[in-house]
Amino acid sequence: MDAHLILLDILLILVFARILGDIARYFSVPSVIGELCAGILIGPSLFGWVEINSTIFLLGEIGVILLLFEVGIETNLNKLVDSGKNSTVVAIGGFLGPFLGGFFVCYWWFDLSVLVSLFVGGTLTATSIGITVRTLGDLGRQQSQEGQITLGAAVLDDIMGVILLAVLYDFSVNGSVDLYSAGRVILFVGIFFILAPVLAKIFSEGIYKLDRIMPGTGAIPTAIVALVLFFAWLAHLFGAPELLGGFAAGLALSKRFFLPFGMAVKTSLRFSEKVETQIDPIVKLFTPIFFVSVGLSMDLGTVDWSSPFFWWFSILVLVIAIFTKFTGALFIKGPISQKIAIGMSMVPRGEVGLIFAGLGASANIFTNEVYTALVMVIAYTTLLSPFWLKLYYSKYGHLLSEQPGLDIESLKVEKLANEK
Amino acid sequence: MDAHLILLDILLILVFARILGDIARYFSVPSVIGELCAGILIGPSLFGWVEINSTIFLLGEIGVILLLFEVGIETNLNKLVDSGKNSTVVAIGGFLGPFLGGFFVCYWWFDLSVLVSLFVGGTLTATSIGITVRTLGDLGRQQSQEGQITLGAAVLDDIMGVILLAVLYDFSVNGSVDLYSAGRVILFVGIFFILAPVLAKIFSEGIYKLDRIMPGTGAIPTAIVALVLFFAWLAHLFGAPELLGGFAAGLALSKRFFLPFGMAVKTSLRFSEKVETQIDPIVKLFTPIFFVSVGLSMDLGTVDWSSPFFWWFSILVLVIAIFTKFTGALFIKGPISQKIAIGMSMVPRGEVGLIFAGLGASANIFTNEVYTALVMVIAYTTLLSPFWLKLYYSKYGHLLSEQPGLDIESLKVEKLANEK
Repeated sequence: MDAHLILLDILLILVFARILGDIARYFSVPSVIGELCAGILIGPSLFGWVEINSTIFLLGEIGVILLLFEVGIETNLNKLVDSGKNSTVVAIGGFLGPFLGGFFVCYWWFDLSVLVSLFVGGTLTATSIGITVRTLGDLGRQQSQEGQITLGAAVLDDIMGVILLAVLYDFSVNGSVDLYSAGRVILFVGIFFILAPVLAKIFSEGIYKLDRIMPGTGAIPTAIVALVLFFAWLAHLFGAPELLGGFAAGLALSKRFFLPFGMAVKTSLRFSEKVETQIDPIVKLFTPIFFVSVGLSMDLGTVDWSSPFFWWFSILVLVIAIFTKFTGALFIKGPISQKIAIGMSMVPRGEVGLIFAGLGASANIFTNEVYTALVMVIAYTTLLSPFWLKLYYSKYGHLLSEQPGLDIESLKVEKLANEK
Repeated sequence: MDAHLILLDILLILVFARILGDIARYFSVPSVIGELCAGILIGPSLFGWVEINSTIFLLGEIGVILLLFEVGIETNLNKLVDSGKNSTVVAIGGFLGPFLGGFFVCYWWFDLSVLVSLFVGGTLTATSIGITVRTLGDLGRQQSQEGQITLGAAVLDDIMGVILLAVLYDFSVNGSVDLYSAGRVILFVGIFFILAPVLAKIFSEGIYKLDRIMPGTGAIPTAIVALVLFFAWLAHLFGAPELLGGFAAGLALSKRFFLPFGMAVKTSLRFSEKVETQIDPIVKLFTPIFFVSVGLSMDLGTVDWSSPFFWWFSILVLVIAIFTKFTGALFIKGPISQKIAIGMSMVPRGEVGLIFAGLGASANIFTNEVYTALVMVIAYTTLLSPFWLKLYYSKYGHLLSEQPGLDIESLKVEKLANEK
């Protein structure tokens, strides 16, 4: 393919993402919806101007990894650990609920095979960290208590989803489940999440020194992107999704991540701010490419709208996909309004669901009808959840704890420590 | 190819470009040399870790387009027009000299066919704007008089090179030259360079307004990159190289480009600065990918080092490639030290020469020996010219007019105009 044609594809993606994102924002809807719609509009579903190809997929991939890096930088690790118990409950509920619900409705109601039923259940377990985080960010709720619980749960969900995918894939190929390989994946991911932030912190000290020795030579953007890509690759090596590598690198560079023995306290605050300023334009450039590419990968034109099985199947699976995601939230302590907000934030399936469904389709496990119905369900949860969430917050947001904003006091203490 | 493997390729490119660029800078050598060497090191010539693929090529392409955009922003159009006559003389000399020299040495000395001789001549006409500009920038000479003359000449050379390529390609396919299609290319490029800056200026006003209405939503990075890509695509449509589109868009957004009737005087200065601050990290991220990919596309391992024809051919062509680039500079007025500096700056062939040589090879016009010899010549001019230029400036730089730096007086006048 000619380079100038891909340049044109990227151009169309950036322009339509911007226009539809701005229209969404004008109607007070999260702009991520506009960007997803941009993908549907210019993709095979409607105009067919842009087809997803490996380059666009990769740019989108870099976009979502960098987004998770920025989320990591803005994450208060203490808060994430504080909400760790709640996140775990929400994640396990939001994993088991959809998995069992999806499996049983397929196996008992629609008489599908065990393997197909397992894959449908697996597809429903996913939680789209990218879309969840972006939506909460658009609503200014990322730092809130329920935002932190959801973020932690989405991260855990992604890890559990990948482990399940590895196990089910084994099962579909060999007809049996290999507990050893499942255990290895779990072990690797665990080691990765303990080692990665420490390693990233050490590297970032090097970048900090480089930037002081040679200012103005572009050390920060290149080195930080390289660092993020390295951790994405490392995550893949450990069997975890790439975007979790970006998150781990971001965590390490966040304002409130400190190594044992206070090794890095002195440089943290100013350096974090410099990194954020210089990386932000790059993140803003790449991230929309990811959301548009999710829209591009859906082809609503292939759906057979007249099949009764299709309608029954997609409606029942959709109901299960939505309500089972509330399972975990019901078991944690807190006001009912918070439980609902968390449950709603967990609904979007997005890219992870599409990866699952795509694997099922390419391995000939799903019939075309089952596949398109699942894509419909994913499209619905992905496109409309941000909208419902926005509506919910505008009606009941006052019942929830307010967005705490910047923690001014602790920043002051850090600043004093820096100046000493 | 798996996404995580390309992520690893990009990671290696960024890291090695940074390390070798920093080592070069440590020894007071332009860092672009380090980046080219990084490509040779990790590419097929030595380690073979990274192979150039369409995604890396595209990212490099975006890098060089953005680099030319930044060059355009920093260009003082008045100065470029002032040096227009000299640039034209340098460009025509630096085009005809290598073309005729290359043709005659092949045709009469080495008894090669007319077509092969024409293609060798064509390959030698190229001037690598990217490497020339980057080297002058690394030396702090981009705004100097000879820097402006060279920049203008390199732009004109690129346009003439593309027209010649179109004509020769026609000749190789049809056995005759179609003057109509050559004339059309010239006309299109002319129209493009008159219309593009005006069009870009109008669009940039829109971006400026968008940024004022919705600050902090990432309007500038996305919209500017989209604008640059649009002009790159438009340039291709008009038959010009894509990177000239980036240059035209940059010119339009430069601090000193004004539309007729003073349409845009009010917003220019502050907006240009904002664009530069936000685009700079993106340019610094992508540009090294281009220079590394030039190194990646060379395979020094395929050279047959024992053939006498190979040595004679490459040495003679190299001598011609270097000395004929001084042809144009000899005809302009000015001190001899300036003429030498301009001639030396015109020597690097870089990407444009490689495109020419690659086309000759893929159309089976060049034998493997001729091709590798040409690649050697291109490699030598590309890799060592920055080095010689640096040495020349350190010895004789004091004879040349000093780097004028920022034109404080005219900035003050503009600022006053802005404040009114």
